[in-house]
Amino acid sequence: MKNKIPIGILGATGMVGQRYIQLLENHPWFEIAWLAASDRSSGKKYGEAAKWRLDTPLPRRVAEMTVSPAEPAGAPKVIFASVDAAIAREMEPAFANAGCAVVSNSSAFRMSPNVPLVIPEVNGDHLEMIEEQPSRQQSGGYIVTNPNCSTIGLVMALKPIEERFGIEQIFVTTMQAVSGAGYPGVASMDILDNVVPYIGSEEEKMEAETLKLLGRVDGHAVQPLQAGITAHCNRVAVVDGHTECVSLKLRRPATREQILQAWGDFRPLAGRDLPFAPEQPVEWAEQPDRPQPRLDRNRGRGMAVTVGRLRPCNLLDWKFVLLSHNTVRGAAGATILNAELLASLGKLEPAAVAAARA
Amino acid sequence: MKNKIPIGILGATGMVGQRYIQLLENHPWFEIAWLAASDRSSGKKYGEAAKWRLDTPLPRRVAEMTVSPAEPAGAPKVIFASVDAAIAREMEPAFANAGCAVVSNSSAFRMSPNVPLVIPEVNGDHLEMIEEQPSRQQSGGYIVTNPNCSTIGLVMALKPIEERFGIEQIFVTTMQAVSGAGYPGVASMDILDNVVPYIGSEEEKMEAETLKLLGRVDGHAVQPLQAGITAHCNRVAVVDGHTECVSLKLRRPATREQILQAWGDFRPLAGRDLPFAPEQPVEWAEQPDRPQPRLDRNRGRGMAVTVGRLRPCNLLDWKFVLLSHNTVRGAAGATILNAELLASLGKLEPAAVAAARA
Amino acid sequence: MKNKIPIGILGATGMVGQRYIQLLENHPWFEIAWLAASDRSSGKKYGEAAKWRLDTPLPRRVAEMTVSPAEPAGAPKVIFASVDAAIAREMEPAFANAGCAVVSNSSAFRMSPNVPLVIPEVNGDHLEMIEEQPSRQQSGGYIVTNPNCSTIGLVMALKPIEERFGIEQIFVTTMQAVSGAGYPGVASMDILDNVVPYIGSEEEKMEAETLKLLGRVDGHAVQPLQAGITAHCNRVAVVDGHTECVSLKLRRPATREQILQAWGDFRPLAGRDLPFAPEQPVEWAEQPDRPQPRLDRNRGRGMAVTVGRLRPCNLLDWKFVLLSHNTVRGAAGATILNAELLASLGKLEPAAVAAARA
Amino acid sequence: MKNKIPIGILGATGMVGQRYIQLLENHPWFEIAWLAASDRSSGKKYGEAAKWRLDTPLPRRVAEMTVSPAEPAGAPKVIFASVDAAIAREMEPAFANAGCAVVSNSSAFRMSPNVPLVIPEVNGDHLEMIEEQPSRQQSGGYIVTNPNCSTIGLVMALKPIEERFGIEQIFVTTMQAVSGAGYPGVASMDILDNVVPYIGSEEEKMEAETLKLLGRVDGHAVQPLQAGITAHCNRVAVVDGHTECVSLKLRRPATREQILQAWGDFRPLAGRDLPFAPEQPVEWAEQPDRPQPRLDRNRGRGMAVTVGRLRPCNLLDWKFVLLSHNTVRGAAGATILNAELLASLGKLEPAAVAAARA
Repeated sequence: MKNKIPIGILGATGMVGQRYIQLLENHPWFEIAWLAASDRSSGKKYGEAAKWRLDTPLPRRVAEMTVSPAEPAGAPKVIFASVDAAIAREMEPAFANAGCAVVSNSSAFRMSPNVPLVIPEVNGDHLEMIEEQPSRQQSGGYIVTNPNCSTIGLVMALKPIEERFGIEQIFVTTMQAVSGAGYPGVASMDILDNVVPYIGSEEEKMEAETLKLLGRVDGHAVQPLQAGITAHCNRVAVVDGHTECVSLKLRRPATREQILQAWGDFRPLAGRDLPFAPEQPVEWAEQPDRPQPRLDRNRGRGMAVTVGRLRPCNLLDWKFVLLSHNTVRGAAGATILNAELLASLGKLEPAAVAAARA
Repeated sequence: MKNKIPIGILGATGMVGQRYIQLLENHPWFEIAWLAASDRSSGKKYGEAAKWRLDTPLPRRVAEMTVSPAEPAGAPKVIFASVDAAIAREMEPAFANAGCAVVSNSSAFRMSPNVPLVIPEVNGDHLEMIEEQPSRQQSGGYIVTNPNCSTIGLVMALKPIEERFGIEQIFVTTMQAVSGAGYPGVASMDILDNVVPYIGSEEEKMEAETLKLLGRVDGHAVQPLQAGITAHCNRVAVVDGHTECVSLKLRRPATREQILQAWGDFRPLAGRDLPFAPEQPVEWAEQPDRPQPRLDRNRGRGMAVTVGRLRPCNLLDWKFVLLSHNTVRGAAGATILNAELLASLGKLEPAAVAAARA
Repeated sequence: MKNKIPIGILGATGMVGQRYIQLLENHPWFEIAWLAASDRSSGKKYGEAAKWRLDTPLPRRVAEMTVSPAEPAGAPKVIFASVDAAIAREMEPAFANAGCAVVSNSSAFRMSPNVPLVIPEVNGDHLEMIEEQPSRQQSGGYIVTNPNCSTIGLVMALKPIEERFGIEQIFVTTMQAVSGAGYPGVASMDILDNVVPYIGSEEEKMEAETLKLLGRVDGHAVQPLQAGITAHCNRVAVVDGHTECVSLKLRRPATREQILQAWGDFRPLAGRDLPFAPEQPVEWAEQPDRPQPRLDRNRGRGMAVTVGRLRPCNLLDWKFVLLSHNTVRGAAGATILNAELLASLGKLEPAAVAAARA
Repeated sequence: MKNKIPIGILGATGMVGQRYIQLLENHPWFEIAWLAASDRSSGKKYGEAAKWRLDTPLPRRVAEMTVSPAEPAGAPKVIFASVDAAIAREMEPAFANAGCAVVSNSSAFRMSPNVPLVIPEVNGDHLEMIEEQPSRQQSGGYIVTNPNCSTIGLVMALKPIEERFGIEQIFVTTMQAVSGAGYPGVASMDILDNVVPYIGSEEEKMEAETLKLLGRVDGHAVQPLQAGITAHCNRVAVVDGHTECVSLKLRRPATREQILQAWGDFRPLAGRDLPFAPEQPVEWAEQPDRPQPRLDRNRGRGMAVTVGRLRPCNLLDWKFVLLSHNTVRGAAGATILNAELLASLGKLEPAAVAAARA
């Protein structure tokens, strides 16, 4: 790729914004060209506006960039967005109407009928819903979203099972890392020597998003999967990595070996050469006490989901544990991979991409 | 009570042994008269043999006591036991055969048909099973057990619901404190910035013990509750207090208010005047993000179970969160309350008790 | 005491405000009669205005009290204050001018020449400086302060040594609990698996306050102790309890036994019967790895300082470790004990006190 | 390098042994050819013998290697050792006498007069002491050691200052990560919500090793630096990364800028092309609240020391904070870099190295 695609970041100073910057350093296709954040940050150098909380240094070039106002004027045509839902509800349509491809981690439009909610390994075909968006016809712009950080690991582990055996009931309990709440986010007084068994709206998001992601495009809309799902969401004293305990009822019987096989065979993006796609999206951990966040969250450079402890469930059919990195696979990396898939499909500024790939 | 009942502690240097000592300081009915631990400790002063890990000082009188060999000779007739299952399997019958009332926190005999597994608020009537034990006829001695630390909170929250509405299915995920694994127990490298989604044999214990505790004495045996149950057990970075997420399917419909009422009305020990019985065994926390271990584990001086977040479950009927202090209510306090109930029923050295209560 | 002294709390919803409420429940001399907080809370019931973070229940009577505006009109004549320095700078003089005894934990006036900075066991005689305050002459009101949470443990451990041997140089490194920063205070992202080697202005406060506390009243001012002092302040992943490593150079030689003796003999309040005064203000921990926050912070009901590891220092003379509970001894309890000393000296609404003590 | 140098690892299943394996994966000069551990592990596959605790996968080739008995027969001529001091005292001389270059992280011989204690950036010239070892004359074998994990960061930060300004007094307080105690090491009950202000023998090691490392070879022995030093060592709830607060008295005056310059200029290995040598051994962090373990421990791929908060000290001259990764720079990486320096000096199996470098 000769010329990289310039991208802009909406919400650049937040935790996910910082992850975009970290992960896009040396990205072969994309280049950060524009950063926007709240009015308070606008006009400052990024290095002064952001309190960098990641364990690799803030790239010097980015530190020197000036934070722009959060307006379409002057922004590039590809926008990575991660802002509060209330703000996203106003801003993201404004950018789409101005002709931008808004690839978003925000929750505002995930459940909108004509907005694709996508995990490339799971339901890339849902991207066609962008053609249903009014802005697409008018300006070429559109919104594409990725799921909540707790949903994404679950759905990646479920998809290979749903494909082969069908899923009828899903029971999930999460133990979520503090980075999922942003910065400053969870107060240390709330999490040291403690568990908080509540995360506002999280259970509702997981339940609704999971069924939409596993659903099918049917004419002009996505039909959600017909299955039952219930979620219990908890916050625990972990920096990065959401752990989830899952029980499943299947539509057709499956042996342990068949489920392991389904996970092992699951490589839906093989051959597409997307830079952020993990070689093995769902990795099996054979040790009896895994996956664990500190030890497994970086598998597949943070983009793989690790599953373990597959065993029979007394109530449903099977139970297991899964883990995924909530700010990489579950947020910034999810957006980037969505953008990569869009680029490879020619939906991301076709001319620029074609030039760049030549 | 004029004269206290002398009791001995088997496994006195362990974490639960230390809690017995802490909780029995100033107990109105019981007095520590004898301490036993492994051969390594035998003959030493307790203050030298034990690495005291609790946040109140080791009582001076106990520190000066000499640790005895773990043999019935010279031991008092009431023994509080908390030792590894393999050791309990040998030792506890030896003490029972020698005429001791062995009130045990060990797991070895919990599921034995003629050994009562008891929570006083739940199934005190199971105590009659001691009459089925051969030692009881011969020497007067017997074994009574309390459940695993993760089982006890669950069963206390379930009992009032089972009584009024019947329970058909139980789904539970635990987030358990490190003190449950004893000392040194869980390595810090395994729990800082981490979750361990596995505790050896814990899920099997929870599943089996719960049904026995909620079962009925039928002739010479306990018939376990006919219900389905599945458990997912996890270790988290909390010092004390097990948090559990529960979903339930009931046999008869219940409204939210009816369940709250059932918990509120649950005072089965009212009037018995057992020193360790909490006034309100199941406490309701109305805040949306409770119970939490750091804030709620000491309710009822560590003997109450706190419940919260009662809400409908998409798959079963209701879901909620519960919390109990795993080394007080879930271990040492459970043994003590069992012993108190035995004493009040005249089954603990009847003569001594009668004298003491006069 | 027949009638309790009514007191008001300025900053009632903060972490220290909550501790005042917790610690004053059942206080034999004082009774909470008035609560004030920010404008946002004013007019609400306290139970709704405050996010209660302590591990004992919010007293029901207090939960029902209405939060008052932070103005002297309608406030009682004794005020316990813990508010941000900028706010304290305005408010505390307003209350003093209105005739209130402002017993404050705020930092605003600690170093003011005519404001006593007091630890009852250390320098109760400094209280006479209140007579130098203009408000005292005019309205009878005045301001008395207690030190920073990291200073107080240090000075209590130093005082007995300073008295007998003189202190020339003090080297101290702190490892401070997160509760010292209030709520929400330290972000969990900043402290899980981490240390923050910086607390704004903390080193300067410790250095200046320590010398003032160990100084002498000389005419109309306090002459600080002539000694060198340097502090390194750090935040660590502990909920409550500040640990401090100290090296000292003495003016006159002292043996290990003499220093232990000085600490053991230190009971300057013996006989005064102040309810919050610990029997043994400086407790010695003989184990080689103590004091530790989780195990020792509650000694003396949180009002004692624990010292340990006294050993020779290669550079100065002696080194040791100390620990104190930062929100009890180091904040709310410090204010209460100051108020108790003022009451016993007849400086707290003399008439009311006299009536109450009768 | 055509042929890599085969190396063996003594203590391969421990925490540092695991780090050797992780860090040597893809090392350009060295190749793991032999693994030894305790008798219990001998004969097993490494993947079964070791409980792998690192966050990258155990290399498959190593997992399949058979653990050898800890004896020189069959071992390669270069041994990386990290075993308990008592074991090292027996084994390391046995390997040296058998002709091996023993590059050790163990503490047993660090202070022996004829054993070099080396940090390549600091005192590579001390390596000549190996010629004083009897084994060197007889078999060619020798022992070289690296310092304790808490010493190494301190000495790297001090060396550039000592060179330019001389150091007269050193005051240091450490806050050390749990990984420094190995696995299982520190119990979780001891460190959650806690600080342990004691690490056995650590203060003595830091004090003695620092002066030897900063000393000069004088004839047949190393003359330690003539300076005063006192250490306070603490364990905190951090996985990896030791934080240290330092105060220094210099022999000649230095401004803040001069000290920053000394650190910035410190590149003693520039031009040597040692694979593990960090480009900038001492990195300056300009933010006021840095360095922090979670954010800075991986600088220079874990081989750099980060310094920050340089400011005047009221008692000595300057104070600052430093941080280093205790199991990379402070242990396994230290051994590897020592071996690289030995190789580049032709002291590591000269023939093999020459062949390999050709």
